[in-house]
Amino acid sequence: MLGPRVWSSVRQGLSRGLFRTVGAWASGEGKKVDIAGIYPPVTTPFTATAEVDYEKLEENLHKLGTFPFRGFVVQGSNGEFPFLTSSERLEVVSRVRQAMPKDKLLLAGSGCESTQATVEMTVSMAQVGADAAMVVTPCYYHGRMSSAALIHHYTKVADLSPIPVVLYSVPANTGLDLPVDAVVTLSQHPNIVGIKDSGGDVTRIGLIVHKTRRQDFQVLAGSAGFLLASYAVGAVGGVCALANVLGAQVCQLERLCLTGQWEDAQKLQHRLIEPNTAVTRRFGIPGLKKTMDWFGYYGGPCRAPLQELSPSQEEALRLDFTSNGWL
Amino acid sequence: MLGPRVWSSVRQGLSRGLFRTVGAWASGEGKKVDIAGIYPPVTTPFTATAEVDYEKLEENLHKLGTFPFRGFVVQGSNGEFPFLTSSERLEVVSRVRQAMPKDKLLLAGSGCESTQATVEMTVSMAQVGADAAMVVTPCYYHGRMSSAALIHHYTKVADLSPIPVVLYSVPANTGLDLPVDAVVTLSQHPNIVGIKDSGGDVTRIGLIVHKTRRQDFQVLAGSAGFLLASYAVGAVGGVCALANVLGAQVCQLERLCLTGQWEDAQKLQHRLIEPNTAVTRRFGIPGLKKTMDWFGYYGGPCRAPLQELSPSQEEALRLDFTSNGWL
Amino acid sequence: MLGPRVWSSVRQGLSRGLFRTVGAWASGEGKKVDIAGIYPPVTTPFTATAEVDYEKLEENLHKLGTFPFRGFVVQGSNGEFPFLTSSERLEVVSRVRQAMPKDKLLLAGSGCESTQATVEMTVSMAQVGADAAMVVTPCYYHGRMSSAALIHHYTKVADLSPIPVVLYSVPANTGLDLPVDAVVTLSQHPNIVGIKDSGGDVTRIGLIVHKTRRQDFQVLAGSAGFLLASYAVGAVGGVCALANVLGAQVCQLERLCLTGQWEDAQKLQHRLIEPNTAVTRRFGIPGLKKTMDWFGYYGGPCRAPLQELSPSQEEALRLDFTSNGWL
Amino acid sequence: MLGPRVWSSVRQGLSRGLFRTVGAWASGEGKKVDIAGIYPPVTTPFTATAEVDYEKLEENLHKLGTFPFRGFVVQGSNGEFPFLTSSERLEVVSRVRQAMPKDKLLLAGSGCESTQATVEMTVSMAQVGADAAMVVTPCYYHGRMSSAALIHHYTKVADLSPIPVVLYSVPANTGLDLPVDAVVTLSQHPNIVGIKDSGGDVTRIGLIVHKTRRQDFQVLAGSAGFLLASYAVGAVGGVCALANVLGAQVCQLERLCLTGQWEDAQKLQHRLIEPNTAVTRRFGIPGLKKTMDWFGYYGGPCRAPLQELSPSQEEALRLDFTSNGWL
Repeated sequence: MLGPRVWSSVRQGLSRGLFRTVGAWASGEGKKVDIAGIYPPVTTPFTATAEVDYEKLEENLHKLGTFPFRGFVVQGSNGEFPFLTSSERLEVVSRVRQAMPKDKLLLAGSGCESTQATVEMTVSMAQVGADAAMVVTPCYYHGRMSSAALIHHYTKVADLSPIPVVLYSVPANTGLDLPVDAVVTLSQHPNIVGIKDSGGDVTRIGLIVHKTRRQDFQVLAGSAGFLLASYAVGAVGGVCALANVLGAQVCQLERLCLTGQWEDAQKLQHRLIEPNTAVTRRFGIPGLKKTMDWFGYYGGPCRAPLQELSPSQEEALRLDFTSNGWL
Repeated sequence: MLGPRVWSSVRQGLSRGLFRTVGAWASGEGKKVDIAGIYPPVTTPFTATAEVDYEKLEENLHKLGTFPFRGFVVQGSNGEFPFLTSSERLEVVSRVRQAMPKDKLLLAGSGCESTQATVEMTVSMAQVGADAAMVVTPCYYHGRMSSAALIHHYTKVADLSPIPVVLYSVPANTGLDLPVDAVVTLSQHPNIVGIKDSGGDVTRIGLIVHKTRRQDFQVLAGSAGFLLASYAVGAVGGVCALANVLGAQVCQLERLCLTGQWEDAQKLQHRLIEPNTAVTRRFGIPGLKKTMDWFGYYGGPCRAPLQELSPSQEEALRLDFTSNGWL
Repeated sequence: MLGPRVWSSVRQGLSRGLFRTVGAWASGEGKKVDIAGIYPPVTTPFTATAEVDYEKLEENLHKLGTFPFRGFVVQGSNGEFPFLTSSERLEVVSRVRQAMPKDKLLLAGSGCESTQATVEMTVSMAQVGADAAMVVTPCYYHGRMSSAALIHHYTKVADLSPIPVVLYSVPANTGLDLPVDAVVTLSQHPNIVGIKDSGGDVTRIGLIVHKTRRQDFQVLAGSAGFLLASYAVGAVGGVCALANVLGAQVCQLERLCLTGQWEDAQKLQHRLIEPNTAVTRRFGIPGLKKTMDWFGYYGGPCRAPLQELSPSQEEALRLDFTSNGWL
Repeated sequence: MLGPRVWSSVRQGLSRGLFRTVGAWASGEGKKVDIAGIYPPVTTPFTATAEVDYEKLEENLHKLGTFPFRGFVVQGSNGEFPFLTSSERLEVVSRVRQAMPKDKLLLAGSGCESTQATVEMTVSMAQVGADAAMVVTPCYYHGRMSSAALIHHYTKVADLSPIPVVLYSVPANTGLDLPVDAVVTLSQHPNIVGIKDSGGDVTRIGLIVHKTRRQDFQVLAGSAGFLLASYAVGAVGGVCALANVLGAQVCQLERLCLTGQWEDAQKLQHRLIEPNTAVTRRFGIPGLKKTMDWFGYYGGPCRAPLQELSPSQEEALRLDFTSNGWL
């Protein structure tokens, strides 16, 4: 997917063992990255002619940079990564790296359908500045994605990745829940540091925390709708689309959970559920981008085939924010 | 379904308005029952020839009566109610009423497929001593069970029930999630006091708590697997199959949540997830009954077509308890 | 479910081996019933106060009796059987027996959730005149309905039934497809003569025909939408809700298929798909009954919780008939 | 995805309107391509080091070229297209073009997630020799793929494609059934000539044939399991994975259907169901490739994360062929 020149350099690096020593884990020091905290999964802004709008991306990042996030997820599902070319994917990550505060983490989505392409994209993401790679499950052949196949896939990626790997399970998009037994096996890999779980099944999240408790392995909730519940069962943070528009509030919810103020946390969590559902399951990325426009960010259009909201959808979206006191 | 004599008396009572005045709500005093707490959904013991074994039922109740439960659910899904005749359903409730401590609540499952049969069963359950009726969604025609249909159904039942009504949503069995908008509408009925939600979607549970916060309406988690998380988002208790075998532990988890000892709660919750899954989704009622045998209760056989566990299933079941330190 | 008197007589009959000798299969002569042909699944008419309207039932039967059906299915899913008491179920079958032409078959739905109740209902159905019992899969615990459990269930029912048994798989209602391997095993039972398959998967229907080809076993399509295709792969008839309103046309489609006039068959089949979907998946029994009103039968209301169609639904229903030239 | 040079030339072509005039449809002559017939969806052979093995591809094509296929589908789901780079996708099509008989059709899968990428890939496929483009539904955001979105997507692609477009619906992989109303609307586009429907719902296939009967629009069954049934309701052919190993038999089934020898057709169809399921749903591409090895073609390994069959899976696969007399 990359140009021949880039890849020949990547491959030379691989063959010379360069990248293998980049990761602290490879030198025998074990896992090091603490991914605990809140991350907005950054959207990719497009111009009216559907080109990536890097300026708007940077502007958004500057605004988002003022919140106490742990870092940024680039090219999670909200980043429209399946609509980007390989070069666009890398360029976006590179620009975010430059625009974001130095002390924050950059988790870059590097998942592709094939193991080989995922390895290559992961290595490239490291080259352009990602601190860790967030790797979505392959999904087109989800009927054949047994635990064995997924363990093989992620092990290969983690073996060859110069940066730590975060597993990423998002059944609403992939039709596939990374099985718990696969997660437990993979948690023992020295270069796999955690999972972003977007399925919303808190029993499962609790079980993963429990069964990986002896590993250096962290769980991030994949949505703000079940953030408090996830903290309650042992998650250490969240990747929350809603943090793109209600960043302060999501960070406040984190703080309330971490300081044990559960009653206030509950009240705040309650008011975030409908807005969160609105910008995720109910209206998707078009809903999230429309809301960003309202909240002072650049949302803008999605790439086709994603469609703009209809006026009545927009109204329903707005109501989910106004009725909870956020607009 | 009942004999002509019983029903003629029920109908006379209905026409004379007898039952209407039984409920406090009917006399204008509003809702009164506080259902907060832990309930085991009692299993129905059968003899080797598949008759209901009322003696074993009473023995089980006496043992369960020693735990600080809020009460007992009779003929939830774990009670094999679809396999009982109407008379058996009533007799079981009647026997439980007699065998259980006086100060505890008896929630009786009275759901049938038709609205009319559900009304009649609910009235009968009240006559044999139920404190509240737990009404599962009709399910055979789940494709036609719109919010409107379900609101109509539950309103009719609650209008005519002499005892408070608890909604019951259990999609794993019914293929149907009682829609949140229907729950919110129904929460305003003076004789509907809460919901038992067994779906395990804690975002949904939080939303229900939030949107019914101005009503006298309580939410019970339908399984021990997400009990802590449910408390964290505002549920007030749980109906937990696991409480039939680990009653002390489930009550301890309740106490830890209610007293804000979240760290200990989390550790305990973690150790309960696998055992809970084993006696519910993984091995069903046959698994629960087998475990009851291990823990000093009478489990015994299920009615056909439910089958006994195979030796290898039994071994896996046992492992889910031993590996978490319960056996 | 039945009164004590009825059951004591049934049980005496069972213990004395009376019913066992009723079935030709039991006397060693093997299977005898040829179920090939078209059947309307008769609806249950109700009065405005939701009582069974036996007069209207008989009137409908008289009209339906003029078509060249092989017989009638009573208490398939379209008969609202889950809303009837046991006595109503039997009384309806008894009335249909009297009202229908002598030379036609009466297939009575006798499925209940428990094996025992299904046996009893099947025996009773035989007593009130059913020629064969159509037994739907138990469904409330569909998560536990393994092939082994279902084979056990149907074997027991067929062993004790005085009349031949027809398997009935209807996943849209039950959430459960009777597994092909279970069907193949059960096809070897001398008292199981066929299956009504409503799932619409014609690959599966072809496979069942293929793998039971050495048995005396027949397959009926469970809907008019895939009737031609089912004939093409070896089915011998259909139980078609649409035959309640377009009886002549469904019988004509049968004739065209049986005489190899596939081109005309195809044209007719095409015009039946939308009307068929309208009275089944799209608008359910309320849609079927509304259409019956239009076509000169008595449709009338359904029992609650099934709801009447809204005006706009009714309009869409009508359009599915008019646009295909049937109204 | 392509190198800059290729794309700049494509884009220049587009802007100069070059490709628009390539298609006969664009010059006002309407649709011309008759796609009726049988197609094997060609697999992509890989070497032991997971490189595309173009020699083996050509050898396979030469063997397949001896059967009376209408043509070849390249990069349907069985072609592992999600695992190929853009250049590989084009190179494979180019090689197939050269290796296959001149008089046969080459349908090239050109679907990508974004509309823009799909347009570009479609144009490129035309450049390397495809006769028509087979365009799978975008799927990662299937929750947002409304009829409107899909109509917009396919219209754009068909507008800009120099070759005719065939819709492609394969819900087992995409989680998305292209809605019938969208198909009907799209059938009116002068450059959309048909659909490959792999869902197996023959009622749906009949309805599509019926509702597009006034258009120049053809339906291909997406699997050999329901090929006869699809012909019976008006399909004109099939894209059948099984034709990669039982090419003569699938073509014979076509002939029997077209000449109205339905009884023989039925017998043959029956014997193809299990082998077909084995190389598709049951064991996927690894099963298909393993079977190709048995039948004298080069199957070879899949790209990761697809895994080889286990010995017991391989045995079950073989049994599905032997028990039906094919091995």
